[in-house]
Amino acid sequence: MHELVERLYPLCRSITGDGVRATLDIVGEYVPLQVHEVPTGTQVLDWTVPQEWNIRDAYIADTAGNRVVDFAASSLHVLGYSVPVSRTMPLSELRAHLHTLPEHPSWVPYRTSYYKPEWGFCLAQDTLDALPDGDYEVRVDSTLADGHLTYAEHVVPGQVPDEVIVSCHTCHPSLANDNLAGIAVATFLARALAEQTPYYTYRFIYAPGTIGAITWLARNAERIEKVKHGLVLACAGDSGQLTYKQSRRGDAEIDRVLRHVLAASERSHSVKEFTPYGYDERQYCSPGFNLGVGSLSRTPYAGYPEYHTSADNPDFVSPEAMTDTLSLCREAFAVLDRNRRYVNLSPYGEPQLGRRGLYESLGGRSDAKQAQMAMLWVLSLSDGEHSLLDVAERSGLPFDTVAGAADALGAAGLIKA
Amino acid sequence: MHELVERLYPLCRSITGDGVRATLDIVGEYVPLQVHEVPTGTQVLDWTVPQEWNIRDAYIADTAGNRVVDFAASSLHVLGYSVPVSRTMPLSELRAHLHTLPEHPSWVPYRTSYYKPEWGFCLAQDTLDALPDGDYEVRVDSTLADGHLTYAEHVVPGQVPDEVIVSCHTCHPSLANDNLAGIAVATFLARALAEQTPYYTYRFIYAPGTIGAITWLARNAERIEKVKHGLVLACAGDSGQLTYKQSRRGDAEIDRVLRHVLAASERSHSVKEFTPYGYDERQYCSPGFNLGVGSLSRTPYAGYPEYHTSADNPDFVSPEAMTDTLSLCREAFAVLDRNRRYVNLSPYGEPQLGRRGLYESLGGRSDAKQAQMAMLWVLSLSDGEHSLLDVAERSGLPFDTVAGAADALGAAGLIKA
Amino acid sequence: MHELVERLYPLCRSITGDGVRATLDIVGEYVPLQVHEVPTGTQVLDWTVPQEWNIRDAYIADTAGNRVVDFAASSLHVLGYSVPVSRTMPLSELRAHLHTLPEHPSWVPYRTSYYKPEWGFCLAQDTLDALPDGDYEVRVDSTLADGHLTYAEHVVPGQVPDEVIVSCHTCHPSLANDNLAGIAVATFLARALAEQTPYYTYRFIYAPGTIGAITWLARNAERIEKVKHGLVLACAGDSGQLTYKQSRRGDAEIDRVLRHVLAASERSHSVKEFTPYGYDERQYCSPGFNLGVGSLSRTPYAGYPEYHTSADNPDFVSPEAMTDTLSLCREAFAVLDRNRRYVNLSPYGEPQLGRRGLYESLGGRSDAKQAQMAMLWVLSLSDGEHSLLDVAERSGLPFDTVAGAADALGAAGLIKA
Repeated sequence: MHELVERLYPLCRSITGDGVRATLDIVGEYVPLQVHEVPTGTQVLDWTVPQEWNIRDAYIADTAGNRVVDFAASSLHVLGYSVPVSRTMPLSELRAHLHTLPEHPSWVPYRTSYYKPEWGFCLAQDTLDALPDGDYEVRVDSTLADGHLTYAEHVVPGQVPDEVIVSCHTCHPSLANDNLAGIAVATFLARALAEQTPYYTYRFIYAPGTIGAITWLARNAERIEKVKHGLVLACAGDSGQLTYKQSRRGDAEIDRVLRHVLAASERSHSVKEFTPYGYDERQYCSPGFNLGVGSLSRTPYAGYPEYHTSADNPDFVSPEAMTDTLSLCREAFAVLDRNRRYVNLSPYGEPQLGRRGLYESLGGRSDAKQAQMAMLWVLSLSDGEHSLLDVAERSGLPFDTVAGAADALGAAGLIKA
Repeated sequence: MHELVERLYPLCRSITGDGVRATLDIVGEYVPLQVHEVPTGTQVLDWTVPQEWNIRDAYIADTAGNRVVDFAASSLHVLGYSVPVSRTMPLSELRAHLHTLPEHPSWVPYRTSYYKPEWGFCLAQDTLDALPDGDYEVRVDSTLADGHLTYAEHVVPGQVPDEVIVSCHTCHPSLANDNLAGIAVATFLARALAEQTPYYTYRFIYAPGTIGAITWLARNAERIEKVKHGLVLACAGDSGQLTYKQSRRGDAEIDRVLRHVLAASERSHSVKEFTPYGYDERQYCSPGFNLGVGSLSRTPYAGYPEYHTSADNPDFVSPEAMTDTLSLCREAFAVLDRNRRYVNLSPYGEPQLGRRGLYESLGGRSDAKQAQMAMLWVLSLSDGEHSLLDVAERSGLPFDTVAGAADALGAAGLIKA
Repeated sequence: MHELVERLYPLCRSITGDGVRATLDIVGEYVPLQVHEVPTGTQVLDWTVPQEWNIRDAYIADTAGNRVVDFAASSLHVLGYSVPVSRTMPLSELRAHLHTLPEHPSWVPYRTSYYKPEWGFCLAQDTLDALPDGDYEVRVDSTLADGHLTYAEHVVPGQVPDEVIVSCHTCHPSLANDNLAGIAVATFLARALAEQTPYYTYRFIYAPGTIGAITWLARNAERIEKVKHGLVLACAGDSGQLTYKQSRRGDAEIDRVLRHVLAASERSHSVKEFTPYGYDERQYCSPGFNLGVGSLSRTPYAGYPEYHTSADNPDFVSPEAMTDTLSLCREAFAVLDRNRRYVNLSPYGEPQLGRRGLYESLGGRSDAKQAQMAMLWVLSLSDGEHSLLDVAERSGLPFDTVAGAADALGAAGLIKA
């Protein structure tokens, strides 16, 4: 995963443009992608797909022609969606277009202006402080023109058409944790899920933030009712503990599963209430859709000083952290995928397990005892109202043991989903 | 307010009679009152309006003609609803009709006997102890005859016919905190509300305790369904912290508003569960009506030693405390009046706030950030099920900010009530 | 009760057989029993009534003819449901059929094999250790043949046909706490209830564990809907604190009553959630029936080292503990029996208690004050949704006071059940 982050890091992504396409090309080497191009001007819910932005070069050069700020060094140096400019102006005038982080003088901030035409440069405060007064040549060789918004999907087919969506934003330029790590975890999660045939169909959405999710929602109105659960992945690779932000519903099955798996895993972690600010869970959880979509991060957005700066580079994300995020996702989806409600077909008194070969002496091994207890719990709570996750939580037994008991009872014809 | 308390203090109020009328005359100088006279014998719910009680004079005089206990000095000296008496009797026989407070020997207690014909005097234990044995002339020059029960209303018209009632009892004689302070706060609250046109219609009820509220309820059967919220004011002027006693429902909107406003105000305060004992919330919250009516006090009834004694005099209530109670009422009604449920008219995805001029850069001023967040919260929770108070509590944002966001979104056509 | 335990202790009970019949004969001396005999092979829910097991003699004898293990000394010495055997074999071969408790070398364990044909002996580890190698004669003179399963009922008729069941298992041989103490408490509880005419009809069920309860449920399908509440009694005589295990519902009336009575009694005690393992609450609470049946014990099953060993003898249970269990049952049923929902017939405002002689001056005695408050609470909450237990819990008043207030208000025609 870290290799993927490193490959994607230099590209200049934005909400549209060739940087997004190049990103999806690379991701496509790992999992096959269906790429969608949506024309500028397309109405998507309350929004309109904007003009496509592309940039070839940008710099500030001193009178000697030395580039003191150069887009070629980092895609962060240009204000995202900068309109073209080619002028010479004194530093005093240029300052209004320069963005720095005085509190971190060696870092370059990340800034955009998507819907208000502007141009600008982002640079280190140290760089700015070292600039002598005088005239500078400023040039942004960009185009803002009718084109397309680009997003992609990858689907892992399941046993049922009901879907789980996994969504990550693809619009941030050279920022590793936000969100190349999310893209990498999503991609390797897709590969892992494809190794078995999961119960649910898993749909991975790679789309620019806000406008991309809105575009996907607008173009998938028919599909929405099949989306039963979902997870937005962001900031998936820093060294902080895992953070799960619940869906707007707060008691959606994905919320219960993530809470359970995080608690059962004994990882230190944090579970947060939904807020209508953050990543694309904002769109999936808007009240008209109100999907059961939560968001998994390590340190949440804006929770670390490197957020939206040049310090969020590939060194800031670790293979171990991404592996841990991936593992948690796999654990959670393993529970989600097996979590169903059953009905006890022999609900009057306990069925006689012994004559069905399901009765182990309770003086037996500890795991046999647990399996036995799990059967009694599943039988007791299989009234169509309790899921296996409910059984695990009520009984205190591991979900796996409970699901195994359900399998055995199902095979014996004692319960049905 | 304190001046009003002082003017009302000397009057001899009871559940009927001229003292109540004189009280309402003075209150009527502050706000116009509609006075109702209900004849003796009128059936009111399970009760009957009793005979009217009036008193001109009452005293105990020694054989030299010195009045040792004199109604002219304090209305508390006579047992409320005393039947007339004019006799001479030895102290030993008189004692059965004398009420004192041995634990507070210099205080005069307050006693009544509304529904059992009796006569009696209340006096300080010290006074009683100083009386030599011997004969005393006792005289109560009262009448108990067919007449009327008197109560009054003042209405502040609102934008809708739905009503908020504010009720205070008018039957206590020379007792300042219980309930002249409540009368004063209610009266000045009415004046403050009249300065704007509130959303709700506010109805102020000045009526004797129990029988007065019952009479009002009996005569307003048609109106009851318009009464959406209410507050009983009592013990509104002592130096103790504010106490809100919840309605019988416990989750009525008035309960949520008072809890929120008290918590947000950072006043030290107390919130109590409903009990079927106290002031006229007993009647408004009886199970047949079950109105959303709570009760606001400072120290609750019987919670201070001066309760129902001559020590509950105008010095016991302070202008500051009454002003604080009034402020809290205004804060609470300001929230109640703006608290509505909205429906997001653009509920699929977030609406694009920018093109409506509602989007402030989040790098902006702190209050602009809060306003922005409040809009996102209002949009997220405007599903017809959450009120603005819910939004404030879920978001942790001030109610005013949330209500302001709702106004802006409403003006932009994005939500409707 | 302890005498009854001592009389029953020597009998060899099992899930069928003459030991059960002898037990019921003795219990029948205390309360009249209706004894039911259900033939082998009868289908009962998912189970089949097994063959009847009877045993006359069993021993292990050395070559000199000395009985080193003798069924006559304790019914525990034989594996329950042992098939007949009559052989001579070396100790080395015999060991596979011997059960001991190495951690308690002087105690004899209790073991059974109901549904898998086996034979075996239980003995003290000390006894086993003292046996020299060599041949032993082993003999189990038992029969396993078509016969009957035996259970009994005793009914205390009530004012209504709705029933409370009290169930205790009768299948354990010489074990005092589990469950002769439960049988004894149930029996004396039945006698105590018969002294008055209770509201509910109380049905006492004496049946072997699991198969007995299942048989009763199978044969009483028509009756089940009349069973409103129930209690399983087990481990009722040890010195530990009382433990109430809630029904599967968790909020059944029996659960609320037991929680309330245990808390109000100020006994140290424990309340546990339902688990689908334990005694016959497993069957009564299976999801098809889901009855409001809890289980009352002192130390729960398997919670004490003497459990299922020869150390669970009559010395292990104390008269005081059984009396305490009995008292708690009587307190709980006294509440259950009076706990009803009322409707206030005068719900608009408070009814005038004074003219009905129900109004005590609140300056009166403390218990009169409580009675007065209880009336106000009952009137306030008699909306058909709150039971008297709700009133007691909301008001903090003793249940008896609340029930007394309800009686007085009912007599005055102010409320009805």
